[in-house]
Amino acid sequence: MAEHKVDIVCIIGTGLIGGSLALALKNTGFCKTIIGAGRTETTLQKAVELGVIDDYDTDISRAVANADIIVVSVPLGAMRAVFEQVNNGKRDDAIVTDAGSAKQSVIQDAEAMFGIGFDQFVAGHPIAGTENSGVTAAFAELYQQRRVILTPTDNTSTQAVDAVREMWQATGAEVETMDAAHHDMVLAGTSHLPHLLAFGLVDCLNNLEDVDEVFRFAAGGFRDFTRIASSDPVMWRDICLNNRDEVMAMMKRYRDEMEKMYRALEANDGEKLREIFERAKKVRDAFCD
Amino acid sequence: MAEHKVDIVCIIGTGLIGGSLALALKNTGFCKTIIGAGRTETTLQKAVELGVIDDYDTDISRAVANADIIVVSVPLGAMRAVFEQVNNGKRDDAIVTDAGSAKQSVIQDAEAMFGIGFDQFVAGHPIAGTENSGVTAAFAELYQQRRVILTPTDNTSTQAVDAVREMWQATGAEVETMDAAHHDMVLAGTSHLPHLLAFGLVDCLNNLEDVDEVFRFAAGGFRDFTRIASSDPVMWRDICLNNRDEVMAMMKRYRDEMEKMYRALEANDGEKLREIFERAKKVRDAFCD
Repeated sequence: MAEHKVDIVCIIGTGLIGGSLALALKNTGFCKTIIGAGRTETTLQKAVELGVIDDYDTDISRAVANADIIVVSVPLGAMRAVFEQVNNGKRDDAIVTDAGSAKQSVIQDAEAMFGIGFDQFVAGHPIAGTENSGVTAAFAELYQQRRVILTPTDNTSTQAVDAVREMWQATGAEVETMDAAHHDMVLAGTSHLPHLLAFGLVDCLNNLEDVDEVFRFAAGGFRDFTRIASSDPVMWRDICLNNRDEVMAMMKRYRDEMEKMYRALEANDGEKLREIFERAKKVRDAFCD
Repeated sequence: MAEHKVDIVCIIGTGLIGGSLALALKNTGFCKTIIGAGRTETTLQKAVELGVIDDYDTDISRAVANADIIVVSVPLGAMRAVFEQVNNGKRDDAIVTDAGSAKQSVIQDAEAMFGIGFDQFVAGHPIAGTENSGVTAAFAELYQQRRVILTPTDNTSTQAVDAVREMWQATGAEVETMDAAHHDMVLAGTSHLPHLLAFGLVDCLNNLEDVDEVFRFAAGGFRDFTRIASSDPVMWRDICLNNRDEVMAMMKRYRDEMEKMYRALEANDGEKLREIFERAKKVRDAFCD
């Protein structure tokens, strides 16, 4: 029998992110038991049926009662209310972490609900996902060779950070730590802005006449480009609102960039356009496969 | 032996588009011989080595001399000069077509070089491609189940349209005809604007400090979203310049759309954001797989 350092992990929110974490932890035997929690009983029943979790409770305070590690993977807008229920039920020494895509707002929520002196909360963000959502989209390999960013504050216990790091490492992820503000800036650029751009493109084309025909002639590049526009609207609303300053700053930068291209096109300045395209191609080829 | 209706096809520009057409036509035995033409002898030699073309000539007027069908697949900016050389060498009854991503400008170029009375020119656009370019990226299956749009004018011979349609059908493509102006509007939205947005995003992030780190934390969504930013800069400069009015109109539409989102974010209007995201997701899910 494997020796478990961790007995019980409680995962609140068993969608793509929480469900895939549960499956990965089960596969590696990281803990003995995984308890699911959430609002919707049918989802939790489905998660048990699929072998994603061992048991569940729709009452979050009860679900977390015996957990060593509590993972909150709910939309950012629900974070604070869930933290409150976690705080009402958890053991004093339980470690709490989350999987939200913005980190400064989550740290504020945690401080408000657990108290500023609470050093067992470790803000975290697995940089992984697909455009699909829900427990049926979950799979154990989602985090393999993907990055997970932890953003501890000066106050966070080193031992708690180590425990959360080990949990994510068990899923096959590479774990790094960084400052929450820096995380939020980086993700605004590489994830939040691209999602807005993709949602915006589809909505913009949807307003054209002959919209059916417009999409009928879309090629493979369009499918790839707009894939992230099939992401969960509520989750993305919450991400935008919770990383509002960084997202707005990135949108302004982008508006200036597009304005530069528009002016070049207006002036028939092909050299300028080629220069921008070539620089972008070079950078993209260097960073992506 | 197969009975060929077409003896010789001459393909000017044996990159991804021209090379893949050549391979597909060879596989199906659509014609007896494929002659390549282009500026760079090493590329044409490579195309012969790879079995893409049977023979070549770097002198376009000579290359087209015996061709039944002449396909011009060069960047839009080179179209007019190539048409001039084609006109100097082709048989009177030869059919000429192209594979450019904008159609009104190509029709103007054709009218200028072949004369407005010339009814054997059929403007065409295969809606297919990858972010890779050059003859080594060519493959015979590129056009299977993809759409090819032909944009004949009132002046174009029906028999010439039929011949070009049959050629593309031999590659496995579905061929449709539409008005050139309509084509240019549709493609500005589904292809030209997305390419500008992707080039713009990469260039915009490239100006950030810590650019290396920014790209290091990019997830799969970012890779998909920016794939088209690895496309050929000269080809895309030419597309933008040659479909300038439609691209600028689409950029303006898009700017308004993003402004709408920015205002919603500024006003903390989550309901508005969710509404846009939901509408976009619904449309995208309906049209794409």
